[in-house]
Amino acid sequence: MMSDATTVFVLNGPNLNLLGLREPEIYGHDTLDDIAGRMEDQAQEIGLTIDFRQSNHEGHLVDWLHEANAAGAKAVLLNAGAYTHTSVALHDAIKAINVPVIEVHLSNPHKREEFRHKSYVGMAAKGTIAGFGALSYSLALDAAASL
Amino acid sequence: MMSDATTVFVLNGPNLNLLGLREPEIYGHDTLDDIAGRMEDQAQEIGLTIDFRQSNHEGHLVDWLHEANAAGAKAVLLNAGAYTHTSVALHDAIKAINVPVIEVHLSNPHKREEFRHKSYVGMAAKGTIAGFGALSYSLALDAAASL
Amino acid sequence: MMSDATTVFVLNGPNLNLLGLREPEIYGHDTLDDIAGRMEDQAQEIGLTIDFRQSNHEGHLVDWLHEANAAGAKAVLLNAGAYTHTSVALHDAIKAINVPVIEVHLSNPHKREEFRHKSYVGMAAKGTIAGFGALSYSLALDAAASL
Amino acid sequence: MMSDATTVFVLNGPNLNLLGLREPEIYGHDTLDDIAGRMEDQAQEIGLTIDFRQSNHEGHLVDWLHEANAAGAKAVLLNAGAYTHTSVALHDAIKAINVPVIEVHLSNPHKREEFRHKSYVGMAAKGTIAGFGALSYSLALDAAASL
Amino acid sequence: MMSDATTVFVLNGPNLNLLGLREPEIYGHDTLDDIAGRMEDQAQEIGLTIDFRQSNHEGHLVDWLHEANAAGAKAVLLNAGAYTHTSVALHDAIKAINVPVIEVHLSNPHKREEFRHKSYVGMAAKGTIAGFGALSYSLALDAAASL
Amino acid sequence: MMSDATTVFVLNGPNLNLLGLREPEIYGHDTLDDIAGRMEDQAQEIGLTIDFRQSNHEGHLVDWLHEANAAGAKAVLLNAGAYTHTSVALHDAIKAINVPVIEVHLSNPHKREEFRHKSYVGMAAKGTIAGFGALSYSLALDAAASL
Amino acid sequence: MMSDATTVFVLNGPNLNLLGLREPEIYGHDTLDDIAGRMEDQAQEIGLTIDFRQSNHEGHLVDWLHEANAAGAKAVLLNAGAYTHTSVALHDAIKAINVPVIEVHLSNPHKREEFRHKSYVGMAAKGTIAGFGALSYSLALDAAASL
Amino acid sequence: MMSDATTVFVLNGPNLNLLGLREPEIYGHDTLDDIAGRMEDQAQEIGLTIDFRQSNHEGHLVDWLHEANAAGAKAVLLNAGAYTHTSVALHDAIKAINVPVIEVHLSNPHKREEFRHKSYVGMAAKGTIAGFGALSYSLALDAAASL
Amino acid sequence: MMSDATTVFVLNGPNLNLLGLREPEIYGHDTLDDIAGRMEDQAQEIGLTIDFRQSNHEGHLVDWLHEANAAGAKAVLLNAGAYTHTSVALHDAIKAINVPVIEVHLSNPHKREEFRHKSYVGMAAKGTIAGFGALSYSLALDAAASL
Amino acid sequence: MMSDATTVFVLNGPNLNLLGLREPEIYGHDTLDDIAGRMEDQAQEIGLTIDFRQSNHEGHLVDWLHEANAAGAKAVLLNAGAYTHTSVALHDAIKAINVPVIEVHLSNPHKREEFRHKSYVGMAAKGTIAGFGALSYSLALDAAASL
Amino acid sequence: MMSDATTVFVLNGPNLNLLGLREPEIYGHDTLDDIAGRMEDQAQEIGLTIDFRQSNHEGHLVDWLHEANAAGAKAVLLNAGAYTHTSVALHDAIKAINVPVIEVHLSNPHKREEFRHKSYVGMAAKGTIAGFGALSYSLALDAAASL
Amino acid sequence: MMSDATTVFVLNGPNLNLLGLREPEIYGHDTLDDIAGRMEDQAQEIGLTIDFRQSNHEGHLVDWLHEANAAGAKAVLLNAGAYTHTSVALHDAIKAINVPVIEVHLSNPHKREEFRHKSYVGMAAKGTIAGFGALSYSLALDAAASL
Repeated sequence: MMSDATTVFVLNGPNLNLLGLREPEIYGHDTLDDIAGRMEDQAQEIGLTIDFRQSNHEGHLVDWLHEANAAGAKAVLLNAGAYTHTSVALHDAIKAINVPVIEVHLSNPHKREEFRHKSYVGMAAKGTIAGFGALSYSLALDAAASL
Repeated sequence: MMSDATTVFVLNGPNLNLLGLREPEIYGHDTLDDIAGRMEDQAQEIGLTIDFRQSNHEGHLVDWLHEANAAGAKAVLLNAGAYTHTSVALHDAIKAINVPVIEVHLSNPHKREEFRHKSYVGMAAKGTIAGFGALSYSLALDAAASL
Repeated sequence: MMSDATTVFVLNGPNLNLLGLREPEIYGHDTLDDIAGRMEDQAQEIGLTIDFRQSNHEGHLVDWLHEANAAGAKAVLLNAGAYTHTSVALHDAIKAINVPVIEVHLSNPHKREEFRHKSYVGMAAKGTIAGFGALSYSLALDAAASL
Repeated sequence: MMSDATTVFVLNGPNLNLLGLREPEIYGHDTLDDIAGRMEDQAQEIGLTIDFRQSNHEGHLVDWLHEANAAGAKAVLLNAGAYTHTSVALHDAIKAINVPVIEVHLSNPHKREEFRHKSYVGMAAKGTIAGFGALSYSLALDAAASL
Repeated sequence: MMSDATTVFVLNGPNLNLLGLREPEIYGHDTLDDIAGRMEDQAQEIGLTIDFRQSNHEGHLVDWLHEANAAGAKAVLLNAGAYTHTSVALHDAIKAINVPVIEVHLSNPHKREEFRHKSYVGMAAKGTIAGFGALSYSLALDAAASL
Repeated sequence: MMSDATTVFVLNGPNLNLLGLREPEIYGHDTLDDIAGRMEDQAQEIGLTIDFRQSNHEGHLVDWLHEANAAGAKAVLLNAGAYTHTSVALHDAIKAINVPVIEVHLSNPHKREEFRHKSYVGMAAKGTIAGFGALSYSLALDAAASL
Repeated sequence: MMSDATTVFVLNGPNLNLLGLREPEIYGHDTLDDIAGRMEDQAQEIGLTIDFRQSNHEGHLVDWLHEANAAGAKAVLLNAGAYTHTSVALHDAIKAINVPVIEVHLSNPHKREEFRHKSYVGMAAKGTIAGFGALSYSLALDAAASL
Repeated sequence: MMSDATTVFVLNGPNLNLLGLREPEIYGHDTLDDIAGRMEDQAQEIGLTIDFRQSNHEGHLVDWLHEANAAGAKAVLLNAGAYTHTSVALHDAIKAINVPVIEVHLSNPHKREEFRHKSYVGMAAKGTIAGFGALSYSLALDAAASL
Repeated sequence: MMSDATTVFVLNGPNLNLLGLREPEIYGHDTLDDIAGRMEDQAQEIGLTIDFRQSNHEGHLVDWLHEANAAGAKAVLLNAGAYTHTSVALHDAIKAINVPVIEVHLSNPHKREEFRHKSYVGMAAKGTIAGFGALSYSLALDAAASL
Repeated sequence: MMSDATTVFVLNGPNLNLLGLREPEIYGHDTLDDIAGRMEDQAQEIGLTIDFRQSNHEGHLVDWLHEANAAGAKAVLLNAGAYTHTSVALHDAIKAINVPVIEVHLSNPHKREEFRHKSYVGMAAKGTIAGFGALSYSLALDAAASL
Repeated sequence: MMSDATTVFVLNGPNLNLLGLREPEIYGHDTLDDIAGRMEDQAQEIGLTIDFRQSNHEGHLVDWLHEANAAGAKAVLLNAGAYTHTSVALHDAIKAINVPVIEVHLSNPHKREEFRHKSYVGMAAKGTIAGFGALSYSLALDAAASL
Repeated sequence: MMSDATTVFVLNGPNLNLLGLREPEIYGHDTLDDIAGRMEDQAQEIGLTIDFRQSNHEGHLVDWLHEANAAGAKAVLLNAGAYTHTSVALHDAIKAINVPVIEVHLSNPHKREEFRHKSYVGMAAKGTIAGFGALSYSLALDAAASL
């Protein structure tokens, strides 16, 4: 696989493939494809490329963080979903790579159950953007472009 | 894959493939195949079909919950094994789908180590049947048939 | 009082006498008498007898567990209500008797307040059936019949 | 038993029968009969009737809350004593009935041992009046009259 | 400033100036001015004077408790709002003065989030009246009059 | 009922009526009647009388502590069983009476589950004798005789 | 004071006045004036006005949130600094007003001491942007513009 | 050193050498020598010998437990003082030897600070006698004689 | 305002203005003015100047720490009173400035309630002097002189 | 796949594929291939074979533990990386198989963040070797050879 | 041994004998002998005598506190090192004697690991001086002289 | 005492002198002398000398760590037994010396009671070898030889 410092990986964790269907009062009506499409448009305008993926497997997210690093990606936007709160493996992967990682969430985890207040991803990531629905991704791409 | 509202998914989590071999004083002597066979018989009698699976991967269980939803399954019986106690991803998957999910356990987790008293699955599932060995599955199928 | 190994005690704890009136969005519209009636029918079909009782007193539930034991009952279905979460006395009574005890709940305690996640009853009982409304009782009777 | 929306139940929990004898530096010198007498006078002035009871049994307090509900009482003043801090059964009873329940305490539990800071009664009651000795009851009756 | 043992300070903490606008399903539709007006009427009837204040500053509430003490006030009714749960400074101020302080709340904190169950104010105050909306203030004034 | 300062109440809590039957590896083979008989013999030798009771009801134990006080008993030996660990009501009753109360246990609670390490009874009682089987009672009677 | 739905309040909490001087390895070298200046430029481009303030007083931040509400501001960007982690008063203020509030941080609190992982502000705010230094403010203004 | 199954070791831990001087309102006025003398008398009457020691060193108490074991002592009475609550080493020593160990305390630790509620000694000892002052030792010797 | 490296700021937090009046059994009979006077004498002898202030407002203490820094003060003696235990803002202010800060307390917080054992001030300050009454200030000034 | 009691599985968890690149100040400069090579040499000398694998997927590690068991392996050396601290599934897998499992770590988890102090692997494994860098593996192989 | 009310015991706990060698970035370069020498000089000037000791044994520190008491010492300066945080025995010894004890630390424990924030010594001592290196001892001696 | 960089200290903590006698199902049948003998043989083969000691006194273990440092020992193998879990003093001693310290355990503490999961020794030591019985010592010596 080819990529370089103009590629931004956008990695989406468990259940995000159901976006738009799942609990829209929390996550909104956009599907993940809608978001991917808009991000590609936004990226193109600023000369970046998006590599947009989703998996329900913690291990794939770890693999992909490594791949982003090997590919010399400019940044990773990581919405790790539920693994945000439980995955020391993702925490370690973020610390193990040189690519800056931005934590992204559609909803604001601090407004939800207490078990979503802990963020192993946030304890390792460059920064966090959460609570703005699909706009969280767009802002994170802007942030990545400015790093 | 084809299924409809007469299909009940029976999803089994980590280490359940060792059933009958592993700690029989806790889990009994039935193998997972024995259970699958008996469930198919029981289902046939009441006009249902069983889709019986096992994986040691948290991600597969999440995938399969989504698949059950997409297939319009009647219900899911979920014995998530150890992931019961640690997986927010499964919790979210159960909440994200419309198919009712019944938590099943061979043993009674409340009689075991304290870290097995917490159930992320139970916090999202329709109900729980635990502690009856292979009979837990059979009762859960009856419950599913009555939903 | 007379009973033998064909009698199943069904013991109901505090506030269950209000069933059908109390918070129907959680507990459903069946009254406790409705449930008792249906259980007697179900028991009769499989050659069992039901001894169905309710009390708001922790001590009565303990007394009745002892009585079930002395009477050589086949099993006890115990919906201890709020005492589930606070009563070490019930825990000890279950361990002190030879009759198998099945924990029953109309709602799924794991989906409610955190203080309902602890189960002193479950830590001693044979197994648990929770979350299926009145069906929980019916499934538990089937389980008892199979013990 | 007969009562109607002009009756206020005043239910007193464990050890309150010793009032006036027990640790007067905490609870004052009034006996429970003194308080009952004064409440009846106060009630009469505002056209209400008092049904004043005491029990050391958690189950009786639950029974009486149900009874107040069945009798269509105007309100319940509940000084659950030690059961305030440990009784999920009382919590559930309060939520299960339609009669408003006012938590009353002679002393201020927050000024005493930490295990008295938790209130299962308060988590379900309409409101709380604590710390004013016998006056707490009188204020609570005024509050009940205004509901 | 002049006052004496017929003056009752009514001190209101953060966000109470928004009363009537803010989350009326929790706090009701009365404004703080409405309450102040009614308290003045009530006080006048029983020969007392009200000094009614509000601030969003923890320090002002501490200052005012000292001022009430210096002025020889009859009592302080203190609705410290959010500072109830976090302010050791208010706790110490209450213990440091000779004027009796009555904790007042419109809503019942025990029915809300767990971080509102702790009361540094209550750990030092004479007593607590909570959950009766504007009536809480009126009852507290009656209590103050009886001290 | 008549008694005086030569009477020692021996109050036994939940499940102790099953003694000799229940988990003999923990509690030994003596029945509660065996113990009562031996205590009466021991008491007679030293000029004391035993009032030996058992109940599964927390409320009865509270009632009986009050009765012992009213009767001017010399002492109470209290084996509160499971209520030892959960009953603030018993704690308060012990503090509310003038008769010295000695906490007795057949087994040593500190060697058992962690929830048996907390003792609300012990936090109020004169002293504790635990772990010696039926001998615990005998030693406690000697202690009572020496108070 | 005049403002309308084109004004965005940018409220800065304790110690942020030292920005650029204080621990630059954590907070960077920009002063708060530098940030204010750049935000005004950015706002002007998109037709918004900035009202930029700083205080070390929790009470002022509460006052200003109310003021933003009264002024019908478009949004508030709130970097509450240390009060983020301790202020229930700010939490309540955010919930009490209709203006959307965006939590902003220069550094990523989850990468710092554990007492900075709790956010009373985040539990009430629309969303959070943290960890990007001065860029956090700029992104938050973009987010506010899109609300 | 010579001893045999008629010797009872009485081992006293830190600060017990100050007995009679130290906080007599908690520990009484007897000195440790007074207690030693009375125990020797009591032992002689029942044909036992006392080996009575005190040390402020945790290590000595461990050494002496081993010595009691090597000497084939009948029992050890252990008042480990403050080490009761902190010493896993004593816990292990008690489990490592065959001589029964009885935990003794002059005061009742459950009535004192919470850090005295944990007993590493009690978690390993045969039983506990606490709260009777010097009488605790005498009762423990009787218990030892009956083992 | 003018000052330089011979000025020592002595900053006093909430309720310290009541010193001498408030709970003298804990804080002694000296007023804050008494202490200020003696410190000025002591400072003069060693060629230092005292800037002695008190406020009940957390924000003022933060402001003054900044002011001490801007003024190039030699040191700050900070008795933050109740804010010691709750103020992350003060913690951050101490870390943000270059002037050494010495934590001072009249009483010894470790001997008081557990919520006074945590010190956000102490976690950032150079050192602590506590428990010596007014002498704590004098010793702290000596310490400051030696820095 | 073929193996027998001379094969030792060496299973490596998440991020270990980055070894030598990732945080060398913690993990050293050896790559995982370097370690694999040296282990094969060491194994050959003592007549053993190494089956050396790495995965970022928790499920693969569970699968491979089962495979090692089915293959009758002599032992498993398991460096589960981050899953050490979070995986009940691995814990259960280790308990479910007959092959002895040795926990291996390059660094010493007890010297790192507190969330690395818990080891679900260690709670089931035969033993642990941690902190010696690549030497940890070599020592573990020696240990395996001696089992 | 002879001493009187002009003697101040300076007792040093574990590892302080390594002072000057051990982690000088935390503890400074002075050896314990350097400190002892300077304290003797300081004491002589104010007519006091120093008895300066060090031990790695908790028991010796307890013994010496008793000895200081028996000798009628004026005060004890106690730097208990690591035992500060774990020793209930030292806590009890301080409370058991009449000599005032001043807790001394070279570094400021609140700035170090959380397990050093608890002080059993501080919970019993007259006061604490911490964080000033060797100057802590000197200030403590001044404090002792003023007691 | 003489030693040099070829000497390895093997320090054994409380109750290890009972090895072979004490709970052999946990610790095996080897005595400590057996282990010492084998270690001397093993050391001789690789040109090292063993200084093998045991004490039940925490202070001796601290003393000996210092002695190992002063003697310029090559390494210390430390099986601190119960002190592993409670001794901050040993933790500090390990950090205070330059000799590398290897934590050794016969059994695997993570498989035992939760209070054995914390390791103050491990938080300071180079590495840990646990769970292999006497082989743990032998592996640790190999590790020491490779440092």
